[in-house]
Amino acid sequence: MDTTSAVLKPPSTKPQVSVARLANHWYAVCESRDLKNDPIARTILGIPMVLFRTQAGEAGALLDRCPHRNVPLSEGVVVANTLQCAYHGWRFNPNGHCEEIPGLCGELAARGREALSYRVKEQDGLLWVYCDPETEPQSEPFSPGCIHDKRYTTVRTQLTVQATLHATLENILDVPHTAYLHGGLFRTSKKRNTITARVTRQGNRLETEYIGEPRPTGLMGKVLAPRGGTVVHFDRFVMPSIAEVDYRLGERSHILASHLLTPINDFETQLIAVISFRLPLPGWMVRPILTPIFRKVFQQDASMLMRQSESVNRFGGERFVSTELDVMGPQIWQMLKRAAQGEDPPKEAKQRDVQMEV
Amino acid sequence: MDTTSAVLKPPSTKPQVSVARLANHWYAVCESRDLKNDPIARTILGIPMVLFRTQAGEAGALLDRCPHRNVPLSEGVVVANTLQCAYHGWRFNPNGHCEEIPGLCGELAARGREALSYRVKEQDGLLWVYCDPETEPQSEPFSPGCIHDKRYTTVRTQLTVQATLHATLENILDVPHTAYLHGGLFRTSKKRNTITARVTRQGNRLETEYIGEPRPTGLMGKVLAPRGGTVVHFDRFVMPSIAEVDYRLGERSHILASHLLTPINDFETQLIAVISFRLPLPGWMVRPILTPIFRKVFQQDASMLMRQSESVNRFGGERFVSTELDVMGPQIWQMLKRAAQGEDPPKEAKQRDVQMEV
Amino acid sequence: MDTTSAVLKPPSTKPQVSVARLANHWYAVCESRDLKNDPIARTILGIPMVLFRTQAGEAGALLDRCPHRNVPLSEGVVVANTLQCAYHGWRFNPNGHCEEIPGLCGELAARGREALSYRVKEQDGLLWVYCDPETEPQSEPFSPGCIHDKRYTTVRTQLTVQATLHATLENILDVPHTAYLHGGLFRTSKKRNTITARVTRQGNRLETEYIGEPRPTGLMGKVLAPRGGTVVHFDRFVMPSIAEVDYRLGERSHILASHLLTPINDFETQLIAVISFRLPLPGWMVRPILTPIFRKVFQQDASMLMRQSESVNRFGGERFVSTELDVMGPQIWQMLKRAAQGEDPPKEAKQRDVQMEV
Repeated sequence: MDTTSAVLKPPSTKPQVSVARLANHWYAVCESRDLKNDPIARTILGIPMVLFRTQAGEAGALLDRCPHRNVPLSEGVVVANTLQCAYHGWRFNPNGHCEEIPGLCGELAARGREALSYRVKEQDGLLWVYCDPETEPQSEPFSPGCIHDKRYTTVRTQLTVQATLHATLENILDVPHTAYLHGGLFRTSKKRNTITARVTRQGNRLETEYIGEPRPTGLMGKVLAPRGGTVVHFDRFVMPSIAEVDYRLGERSHILASHLLTPINDFETQLIAVISFRLPLPGWMVRPILTPIFRKVFQQDASMLMRQSESVNRFGGERFVSTELDVMGPQIWQMLKRAAQGEDPPKEAKQRDVQMEV
Repeated sequence: MDTTSAVLKPPSTKPQVSVARLANHWYAVCESRDLKNDPIARTILGIPMVLFRTQAGEAGALLDRCPHRNVPLSEGVVVANTLQCAYHGWRFNPNGHCEEIPGLCGELAARGREALSYRVKEQDGLLWVYCDPETEPQSEPFSPGCIHDKRYTTVRTQLTVQATLHATLENILDVPHTAYLHGGLFRTSKKRNTITARVTRQGNRLETEYIGEPRPTGLMGKVLAPRGGTVVHFDRFVMPSIAEVDYRLGERSHILASHLLTPINDFETQLIAVISFRLPLPGWMVRPILTPIFRKVFQQDASMLMRQSESVNRFGGERFVSTELDVMGPQIWQMLKRAAQGEDPPKEAKQRDVQMEV
Repeated sequence: MDTTSAVLKPPSTKPQVSVARLANHWYAVCESRDLKNDPIARTILGIPMVLFRTQAGEAGALLDRCPHRNVPLSEGVVVANTLQCAYHGWRFNPNGHCEEIPGLCGELAARGREALSYRVKEQDGLLWVYCDPETEPQSEPFSPGCIHDKRYTTVRTQLTVQATLHATLENILDVPHTAYLHGGLFRTSKKRNTITARVTRQGNRLETEYIGEPRPTGLMGKVLAPRGGTVVHFDRFVMPSIAEVDYRLGERSHILASHLLTPINDFETQLIAVISFRLPLPGWMVRPILTPIFRKVFQQDASMLMRQSESVNRFGGERFVSTELDVMGPQIWQMLKRAAQGEDPPKEAKQRDVQMEV
């Protein structure tokens, strides 16, 4: 029963929910090494899928429902180059073709006996799925930078966040919250400098360069640049689900954090973070320091995003009020919404500068 | 929020949910010995009921809601030949008649103070309830065969399955899944013989005879017929909720498993299994071997049916694709659906043969 | 899926749910001492609120949602005389005015950046909130009697009940159930005397005087009046959420139990009981005897009210059948309903007598 609406007089603006369901894209589902002998059940954009790997090593992604009696195929087992349903033993290859119906004397092939299959690509040790089975992909999966560069150490971590894709993207690419939610780790809440955020949108990308950003003071600062240097900081969004933080401090320190997001459903988002760094100290020494910091930050963000989702749900939608400090979020939403309506992104680049204190 | 529908393009067929709510029938609710001094709450066809036994021994079934302040009567206690509500002490006899309202000075009798009552019958040690309080039953409760035959040993077991009545009926009367879901117990998945399934529908019954079925090879086979014999195997459905497996091997081995189902609600079904057997070995010796096998089989089926229900629910309905191997399920559904629409079953018998490999 | 409706033929009357959402009233939210340094999240009438106390000691109540990104303000901390959001550090004073947006270079003031605020009053050690932010209160919060009288001992207790405001009010002010639900504590179920319940409605009050009520026999009787005396017993309802039991036995025993109810949402009600008593024995001696009795009674009532709510929900509404013994409940519902429709209470007093056996 909707009790809130009757009592709480709403403001004049209508609530919205920043959900865009973009099926015609590649989404990172898991690391390749996670898919071994047993099939894995994953949901993308609300679609239950089963991932499996044939004995020949080929990965497949099918709708997680046997056409026969609709039980999840992810309950089954891999037999030779097929996935065998646990109920009656029907077998499907990675293309969804039904290769056996045990006991059947008549004709095997029939249209309705196929399982819906999705395109799969393995790249950079990640398994990507293209969510629209009916259209040919016009792009390749996103490839995180620096991971093949020997000078870099790479850390990977996975996390599920109870939030929309959009809220998760905005959170990762938002600077002002770091002084509060992650207070002490990155920035403190004491004001220091007025800097410029230069926001550039072009095609499927939105990028913010932070110009004049002071050197970090917290623990992070000490690790990154014991001897100082200039900050070069870009935050990037790549449609529809990549958030990248690109942070240099002097010539010797560089952290590139690529966040590959996958909408599980409207209010649940999977994050695979691929974080590559090159620092004055050797990777093996910094890794055990940085890894728990990354984890702490992700946990704080995930916790706040969950609270946000709960609040949005109990109020029946979002009523966000943005300021000029929200340099990425509102524009990311415009880009997602436009794409959901089938529009192409505008070709010409667009740039604007915003002043903020950090 | 329905996330699936927006992204997952559905096939051209509409989903259905195989739910038929047939109130004008007897359903087995519990064993007679389960109903002692304390009232029992049970739900049948979504109707909350309270069962109770008066001090004189009479069983009653009332709608589980006190007419006064709507608390469940099953919270109450039996006082003499009435069920007394726990909140204000109103008392009802097995016919639902209100026999006392404590504190009342005025007239007791009033139409709205009656509790809705359901017909109850105790037979074969089972308690049956007729779910339509307004029509006179045209039939008697089903009586499982062999239970009064001294040569037979009878085992009873109860189980609640998270599945529709129809899915549970189909599962019990389905042969092909046994080689997979119960692989090793009954049949193996290796093909051996082509046999004939002769399906006969007549009135309220649907029966399949398996002709030419080979002797079982698994553990079951060793127990049933150490010295061999011919298999005589019938699977029977009796409207609307009885599934019977009748299996003979030679002259000395006979198992008759009567499954009395009761729809608790659309996706929950109660099963009382009454399994009578006569085997070369004495009952007391076979019972401890067969009982855990039966239990294992029921658990495997219940687990698979729950997965099926979950899957049907998350996809918003069933999209079953049947083959000729599904000899019982689709026809059972036709019979249930026809009855739900108030149609009488066709009088003439109908028979067809299906080839299958087992 | 609504399974009940299809099978269970409903009686001719329509179900109702006795829910009245009256925002233009004061509700007791907590004791003043409960609100210290940390903000508290509370829901009233389905409206999530955050309560906080500034460093200057002033209490505030805001809608529990930051206007910026909609996270609950109750996750935040008090900084000086403001509540600071945990996500981006926005700060609000008790009037909901936004006093800081960290990092912002431009103009701070803007209409949408205010948090909705509610009137707060602290009185008798209790914190009251007025739920309609747009209208000026026409009344003061209810003040429980006897709490400032030195001859009385006062016990306070809090409880959350899974029931509508109306069902909770009726339960507290209902006499007949005590012999059953609390059998042995107050009254026994044996009939004794015919008494008169004189019911008077005037303005925003409904009061029942029980005339000729016999002395209690149970444990309660022994504690209250070891040497006997006449019972003077009033039960009172004060709109919209106060239930008072006023019980005297002779000249030396008096118990005044004021129940301050607050609807959390339609099916959840908070109870703050303020129970003052004056007895032949000293307060310090009686308190440890009475406190566990009060607690037991509240637990029994809360448990029954929860069962009632569950039952009302599974049957899709209430179908209460009242008798003349239900002297308060139906009339309280009329008063709540009339107020919810914006009608003023009739000015003239109305009185009627009901006979009952206790």
